[in-house]
Amino acid sequence: MPVYFEDVTVGESQSFGSYDVTEADVLAFAEAYDPQWFHTDPERAREESLFGSLAASGWHTASMTMRLLVDNHFADTASYGAVGVDALRWPNPTFPGETLSVTVEVLEKTPSESKPDRGTVRTRVTTENEAGEPKLTMEPIVLYARHTPGEPT
Amino acid sequence: MPVYFEDVTVGESQSFGSYDVTEADVLAFAEAYDPQWFHTDPERAREESLFGSLAASGWHTASMTMRLLVDNHFADTASYGAVGVDALRWPNPTFPGETLSVTVEVLEKTPSESKPDRGTVRTRVTTENEAGEPKLTMEPIVLYARHTPGEPT
Repeated sequence: MPVYFEDVTVGESQSFGSYDVTEADVLAFAEAYDPQWFHTDPERAREESLFGSLAASGWHTASMTMRLLVDNHFADTASYGAVGVDALRWPNPTFPGETLSVTVEVLEKTPSESKPDRGTVRTRVTTENEAGEPKLTMEPIVLYARHTPGEPT
Repeated sequence: MPVYFEDVTVGESQSFGSYDVTEADVLAFAEAYDPQWFHTDPERAREESLFGSLAASGWHTASMTMRLLVDNHFADTASYGAVGVDALRWPNPTFPGETLSVTVEVLEKTPSESKPDRGTVRTRVTTENEAGEPKLTMEPIVLYARHTPGEPT
């Protein structure tokens, strides 16, 4: 049975996933969606960028994080998708060759006042590399179905 | 000369861009980064999804928005990239066949206290389709270089 709103516990935390960041993917994503030279030109990035190396687009890091969430966290969840995301930050750039993993901590659950069959869950998501350096943090607000609509949670 | 921190005016607003959302791109993005059935299976989405149609991943809408910003807004800007994004929301799903455009309004400028050669600019970004329906709103916080470091702005 999938994870419903009632099955989510505030304070619980899960860590999972292993996503290998490749230079080919960094370049392909950037050429399509974020063609700034520090994301598309490895040589110039090595010589001139603040980081001394080609770095992934922040939206690419967010998208790789989403893939880890879909495969490991939302795969068996009665979720309707995210209403939105608060406090998205990129504390460090993501580099080709790194391996990303994700931690999700449940911050808050709010039953819908108007619709008794659903509620929102606010989590804190942290994406880090194999050395534990944080690459992305955010607070998604996700809509979940309830399997006992209207009862106290 | 590129747009520096000093050249940005609080309250100014720009609208631009024209991004055609194709089903092929919606599927390719979702298969790579957000393989949930309402983003990857056109038939099932038509029959079972809340929206009655295949919808783009919210991260795809954000990435298409970034492409419009890079091509039209950051192309000639002394920007070091975004520190982060607040209040990211997807008020409506994005569908194949739509054409997206973007409006950027400058909300706030904050000179760095520790580094006189830079400052942050908070904007309100709204992405909408050709009928003016909002698809994404967010408040990016972007780091800009100053061309007169330390002088009053």
